[in-house]
Amino acid sequence: MEITKESITDWLKTLQYTICRSLETEDGLAKFKEENWEREEGGGGRSRVIENGQVIEKGGVMFSAVSGKTPDFLFKEKEHSISGTSPQETTFFATGISIVIHPQSPLVPIIHMNIRYFEMSNGTKWLGGGIDLTPHYIVDEDARFFHKQLKSVCDKHHESYYPKFKTWADDYFFINHRKETRGIGGIFFDRLNQNEFLNFEQNFAFWQDVGRAFAGIYVELMHKNKTKPYTPEQKQWQLLRRGRYVEFNLVYDKGTKFGLETNGRIESILMSLPANASWLYDFKTKQDSEEQNTLNKLKKGINWIS
Amino acid sequence: MEITKESITDWLKTLQYTICRSLETEDGLAKFKEENWEREEGGGGRSRVIENGQVIEKGGVMFSAVSGKTPDFLFKEKEHSISGTSPQETTFFATGISIVIHPQSPLVPIIHMNIRYFEMSNGTKWLGGGIDLTPHYIVDEDARFFHKQLKSVCDKHHESYYPKFKTWADDYFFINHRKETRGIGGIFFDRLNQNEFLNFEQNFAFWQDVGRAFAGIYVELMHKNKTKPYTPEQKQWQLLRRGRYVEFNLVYDKGTKFGLETNGRIESILMSLPANASWLYDFKTKQDSEEQNTLNKLKKGINWIS
Repeated sequence: MEITKESITDWLKTLQYTICRSLETEDGLAKFKEENWEREEGGGGRSRVIENGQVIEKGGVMFSAVSGKTPDFLFKEKEHSISGTSPQETTFFATGISIVIHPQSPLVPIIHMNIRYFEMSNGTKWLGGGIDLTPHYIVDEDARFFHKQLKSVCDKHHESYYPKFKTWADDYFFINHRKETRGIGGIFFDRLNQNEFLNFEQNFAFWQDVGRAFAGIYVELMHKNKTKPYTPEQKQWQLLRRGRYVEFNLVYDKGTKFGLETNGRIESILMSLPANASWLYDFKTKQDSEEQNTLNKLKKGINWIS
Repeated sequence: MEITKESITDWLKTLQYTICRSLETEDGLAKFKEENWEREEGGGGRSRVIENGQVIEKGGVMFSAVSGKTPDFLFKEKEHSISGTSPQETTFFATGISIVIHPQSPLVPIIHMNIRYFEMSNGTKWLGGGIDLTPHYIVDEDARFFHKQLKSVCDKHHESYYPKFKTWADDYFFINHRKETRGIGGIFFDRLNQNEFLNFEQNFAFWQDVGRAFAGIYVELMHKNKTKPYTPEQKQWQLLRRGRYVEFNLVYDKGTKFGLETNGRIESILMSLPANASWLYDFKTKQDSEEQNTLNKLKKGINWIS
């Protein structure tokens, strides 16, 4: 396909549709509800949310395509500042899909996926995205499966991508005040255009494959774990881990901050928060427990594949 | 008393003791548990936490007294920057009490109180603090009682203080992305030394009275409301309101941000988060319901007293 705003938008809408269908089928009970919304400054979105399913307690597959005057902060971020143009002179267009799924069972992991495309009237454009997994209980076999799937998506396009984007995810999904990663990471990338490895069209193909890979990976993890029995203690541990998820999203996540600061649609932005979460004062895991085992593996730099 | 670091610290410790006794007595079941902790860079604290009481589900009365090299950010905040000294040259001492109480019943309000004293080796010193109330359901009579009590504490020292510090609380305890106040506000003040109204000693006396007023005000609100029956729907509404409390504390609260960024004791800082909280996608209150009535009153600038 020719890569234009319109073709990207159409492709993302189709992807939203196919992902929702896959998740509904595996859930077997709940259906996505849809809201179309408009943004005063330009553009809008199509939010699809599923609640109270058999497998999924709360999840969203959110599409948006917004435009307007380029926000000032893009010119202020030191590491990525765009020189040569003042923000007043440009308009932007941004489109993407964001997904967070909170399952009912503590034995099914939380997953997050985002792919986004950004362009400005001055010709600047880039791709960003990633998929990361937050198991309430880390199971090595599932972690290996997850990372292998992501590696194979990356390797198809360039062998440097998995190690590079895996490290980026480790660094990004880090709850600094807890000194814990949010989960087992995955891949994360931003501001991808052309680089020393691939041209823009090739990177666009990689970006599409990330989006296409999501449903298959998560449905397999749902299917494998959804019928396993669990205890009330495991459910309580899930609520505590969800508390950490809330901490990451409200304190660190750039997409959330951006949305809250730029008058985004609050219900779409905070869809990522779980139906319920818990904080107990100074909770300690038991030695050699599964909970302790999980905490021990919430670290950067683990090679999940070898 | 002569106002010194030592005398302030001693007084705060006694206040922590008397507040905990009052709350325990009114709760009638749970007792505070104590942890003493030390800070690597200097000083430490005495955390007292109560959980699973008859009236209080989770609450903390936290004392701390910390010292060290003055953090750089104090010299960076535009509105309050301290000129004439570079941060490298000064040390600081800060002591205070922070309280958050999350009750079991949705008909008992959440309360927060903080009083703090700060000084630097260059002679700068100030007082800060406040009390604010977050009812899950706003009851005009209780709101009037609460604000009248605070006004009388303020009026005893200077008539300008209640209007000034009430407005400050309205502005501070505001969830900007929701366009809602956190609750019905109260009073909030910072960087109080000498001003056009009172000298430092007089302001110190005001500050002490804020601390002394807390227990009486909250115990009365606990006592009045703790035995009222409530429905599961009201409990669910409480969990949603607690979700907003989490949003405020993690996204906006300066004390929380300061703690997370300066390597504070995480369990003490995040004691303010409730045992459990909830987020439902795009939840709407029913017209003319008590929930809608509460939302309508989560606004700045309401005169609760007249």
